[in-house]
Amino acid sequence: MGQSERQKMAAGEWYCCIDPELDGLRAVAREAVHQHNTMPPGERGNIGPALSMLFASVAEGVFIEAPFHCTYGINISLGPNVYFNAGCIILDTATVRIGEGSMLGPGVHIYCAEHHRGLAERRAGLEVARPVEIGRDVWIGGGAIILGGVTIGDGAIVGAGAVVTKDVEAGATVVGNPARHLVVR
Amino acid sequence: MGQSERQKMAAGEWYCCIDPELDGLRAVAREAVHQHNTMPPGERGNIGPALSMLFASVAEGVFIEAPFHCTYGINISLGPNVYFNAGCIILDTATVRIGEGSMLGPGVHIYCAEHHRGLAERRAGLEVARPVEIGRDVWIGGGAIILGGVTIGDGAIVGAGAVVTKDVEAGATVVGNPARHLVVR
Amino acid sequence: MGQSERQKMAAGEWYCCIDPELDGLRAVAREAVHQHNTMPPGERGNIGPALSMLFASVAEGVFIEAPFHCTYGINISLGPNVYFNAGCIILDTATVRIGEGSMLGPGVHIYCAEHHRGLAERRAGLEVARPVEIGRDVWIGGGAIILGGVTIGDGAIVGAGAVVTKDVEAGATVVGNPARHLVVR
Repeated sequence: MGQSERQKMAAGEWYCCIDPELDGLRAVAREAVHQHNTMPPGERGNIGPALSMLFASVAEGVFIEAPFHCTYGINISLGPNVYFNAGCIILDTATVRIGEGSMLGPGVHIYCAEHHRGLAERRAGLEVARPVEIGRDVWIGGGAIILGGVTIGDGAIVGAGAVVTKDVEAGATVVGNPARHLVVR
Repeated sequence: MGQSERQKMAAGEWYCCIDPELDGLRAVAREAVHQHNTMPPGERGNIGPALSMLFASVAEGVFIEAPFHCTYGINISLGPNVYFNAGCIILDTATVRIGEGSMLGPGVHIYCAEHHRGLAERRAGLEVARPVEIGRDVWIGGGAIILGGVTIGDGAIVGAGAVVTKDVEAGATVVGNPARHLVVR
Repeated sequence: MGQSERQKMAAGEWYCCIDPELDGLRAVAREAVHQHNTMPPGERGNIGPALSMLFASVAEGVFIEAPFHCTYGINISLGPNVYFNAGCIILDTATVRIGEGSMLGPGVHIYCAEHHRGLAERRAGLEVARPVEIGRDVWIGGGAIILGGVTIGDGAIVGAGAVVTKDVEAGATVVGNPARHLVVR
């Protein structure tokens, strides 16, 4: 018996996103996101029950401002005191791990999902999922986009509006589209 | 008798956006967008009644994730199986046609609306509207911005965070701000 | 007796954002933003009561499309006929003044808040706040990001998706990431 689409997704192989099991998981996430975003902030507190239960793991002190959006949620692991400002979006078709104390500015997007570049395959719903790993004490400026497969080292800084297509070393600062190491002048 | 502001807008001429007829149309779109974005996802399904009724045409299999925003809605035509991820915004002062199977990543913005560059004219509310045409099987990466007047050919790929100011040929891949053809290294 | 964190923030000095007084102010803003964004548009009208009461000052004819987000709100002053399209976000840790008739496209972000670049200091919640001043009749294209400390002169135009890191002179047009003066070809 072959692998399910969910198993292929988790294994980093091409899979078809048009699939009842994946549809069901996305529907669950959509409800959790809707609850998070419509709940009065005073009731929601730092993160609220919907996302706390959805995510793979949430450490102490995590704060997720509304609105927030994710595709599955079940692939997201957040270390202690991780902070997401308003409007962050994570397409977590693969695992997304964010280390202790890291902060995402408003409107930061993380895309694990990649469609197929071949027309026939894209039409058929073929996607591949690549994980994103963000270390400790990382500051990601607002409006930045992090592509699938990227690792960002501890203490790095990503400038506002940067489009990060490659790994960022620990302690480095990157800016621009595509993101490059900042040259201090 | 002269043309109405709506007629001038549709004709691609300078028009004044401070106008009771246009105000009314924008108010209708605002209500539809609000309904779409606040309706529980399980009730909304793929697109929901509010946007289905608002848009010029919606083919089978269209899916619009919430939140979504548009200015008028009545100028948007979507082919079969068009997919908008969360947070897309279309300023549809002119027609926006999107072909079969095209996919917009999260936070894609399409701006048909352009203000006047002259100070007095801008103060007076003068705008011009230029259509956007997106072909079949186009993949627009998240956070991309498409300016008015742009045509994107069938099967093209727009990179995440690209700002598209010029036409994109069928099958081409563009990235960056402003978007340029991708040079493979 | 030393200054409070709020006083340090207002004075442009390093301050700790983990502070009961600042927490309380952010909670108030979060409720106002939630009210603005969930109120039916027909009831909300141009701006609605929640943000009108929160902001430092709001002149006649201001229009704030939903959704909108800000950190404190109390540092925002808007001149007559200022218009924010949908999805604007202002991290107003310092004063943000926007002059008469200026227009923000959808998804414009303004960030007064800057974290400390030193690891230990960032972990401790140290931030500095720098004001943003936007003149009259400025047109800021959608998806643009304005960083703290920036002044934009009267009548300037900021291109869609620009990341503005330096002052923009009156009447100038800037585009790109980072934003540079537009060279007409």
